[in-house]
Amino acid sequence: MAVIGLVGLGLIGGSLGLDFRSSGHRVLGVSQKQSTCEQALLKGVVDKASQDLALLKDCEVVFICTPIPLVLPTLKKLQAVLHPHTVITDVASVKGPIVEMATAQWPQFVGGHPMAGTAHQGIEAALVSLFHQRPYILTPIASTHAKALDTITHLVSDLGSRLVVCSPEVHDQMVAQVSHLPVMVSAALLLSVVDPANVQQFAGSGFQDTTRVGGGNPDLGLAMAQNNRTALLESLKQFRAALDHLEEQIHEQDWNSLHAQLEASRHIRTGFFP
Amino acid sequence: MAVIGLVGLGLIGGSLGLDFRSSGHRVLGVSQKQSTCEQALLKGVVDKASQDLALLKDCEVVFICTPIPLVLPTLKKLQAVLHPHTVITDVASVKGPIVEMATAQWPQFVGGHPMAGTAHQGIEAALVSLFHQRPYILTPIASTHAKALDTITHLVSDLGSRLVVCSPEVHDQMVAQVSHLPVMVSAALLLSVVDPANVQQFAGSGFQDTTRVGGGNPDLGLAMAQNNRTALLESLKQFRAALDHLEEQIHEQDWNSLHAQLEASRHIRTGFFP
Repeated sequence: MAVIGLVGLGLIGGSLGLDFRSSGHRVLGVSQKQSTCEQALLKGVVDKASQDLALLKDCEVVFICTPIPLVLPTLKKLQAVLHPHTVITDVASVKGPIVEMATAQWPQFVGGHPMAGTAHQGIEAALVSLFHQRPYILTPIASTHAKALDTITHLVSDLGSRLVVCSPEVHDQMVAQVSHLPVMVSAALLLSVVDPANVQQFAGSGFQDTTRVGGGNPDLGLAMAQNNRTALLESLKQFRAALDHLEEQIHEQDWNSLHAQLEASRHIRTGFFP
Repeated sequence: MAVIGLVGLGLIGGSLGLDFRSSGHRVLGVSQKQSTCEQALLKGVVDKASQDLALLKDCEVVFICTPIPLVLPTLKKLQAVLHPHTVITDVASVKGPIVEMATAQWPQFVGGHPMAGTAHQGIEAALVSLFHQRPYILTPIASTHAKALDTITHLVSDLGSRLVVCSPEVHDQMVAQVSHLPVMVSAALLLSVVDPANVQQFAGSGFQDTTRVGGGNPDLGLAMAQNNRTALLESLKQFRAALDHLEEQIHEQDWNSLHAQLEASRHIRTGFFP
């Protein structure tokens, strides 16, 4: 059992805390807000909480669960506090702009990305088993220490996640397709509604599901676009081509081709989620 | 308590049967397949099942839960079997092409559309409380009998659904935005994936939710497009404009505007799903 530090006690940090504690680890949490620290204790997310990073000085592993733009600044602050053998990881949904620099600054760094979320954010939204059977991606580079990678791998298996290991570059390309593109498409679905106040009474579970990620935290959506812009623009191009195709078939009443495309999309989804 | 007939025992018919029976109604079901009839009895979806529409002759209300193209042909067959005072309703996700003609054929007809679904189909997928707190839209026209509308309204309240009443035309426009458009967009997300076999290990709950309706029954997606083509093409145009806007902001790195748009989409979603 390890002593684990969490910096940032939102949806992701809070949910990690709940699961690590129920696996028997000791969890220490840091948040900028006193009220979040209090709530984290109350919810059983952490064993101890503080606004001061010094709380984490004896941790064996620290998860940086801040918004993307704060990952590298937080790492810098942690350097002054932690033992050099402490393993640090992050949970940011982009890896290219973070992993090289973070590893250069802290040799025991391992880039990570647990792929799960809900429509909500903040410590109130923290959930038990959020990462269960979801992908947890680790993105080692040539200079990543094997032992540090091993430490995080074990913790990922405590969460019941599906471990995926790849380079930061492959991560960013893949995640553009399955996460960042869906956020923009889902936001566009919401923004394209004419007269939302009237339309909302007609919305069922289909619209609820397709718009969940588009109705999420705007700061996160922005950070995805800023930090993974090239891959996201490429994915948008692919998406546009696929949609153009469907639209043309509807326009031309080419029903056989449309049916074949919908058959293909069902087949693809069954591959993703059997 | 009423004697209710169901023609078509798939996801929708099956789920209606489960809920109507637990509300104390007697439910009789008709399916073209003997094996579906047997499964419906086994699952407790119906009190009696048959491949013969004559089973329904003494029903007070009949729900036509067939695929869209079979609604009017089924109504025609039912005319030979039912008492003229029997109320008939359907569950098709388009109403314009059905309600006028059905009401002309059967004065006790009321157009309906329960807005709920899952990624699965068929009697195996039938669920208790599928329609609970979901919209159930009824689309009376000038010639609809008030008493028939009243009968269906009461049954909708037994399901715990949120009743919405509007014209078939308004229904089709609204549903194009919140249901038919999302199906095409969601299918395009799946079809735009490059190398799905490799990408699938990266897909988390966000991709799972946004692609649920796009991975659904191709026959249903086709029927939506065929029967609500004009409204769907209009919605696709609106969607394209919203997505163009977001893409331009990402391309131009106009981060303030992108953040404002994502803020707006979050606000719209909170209105839809508080």
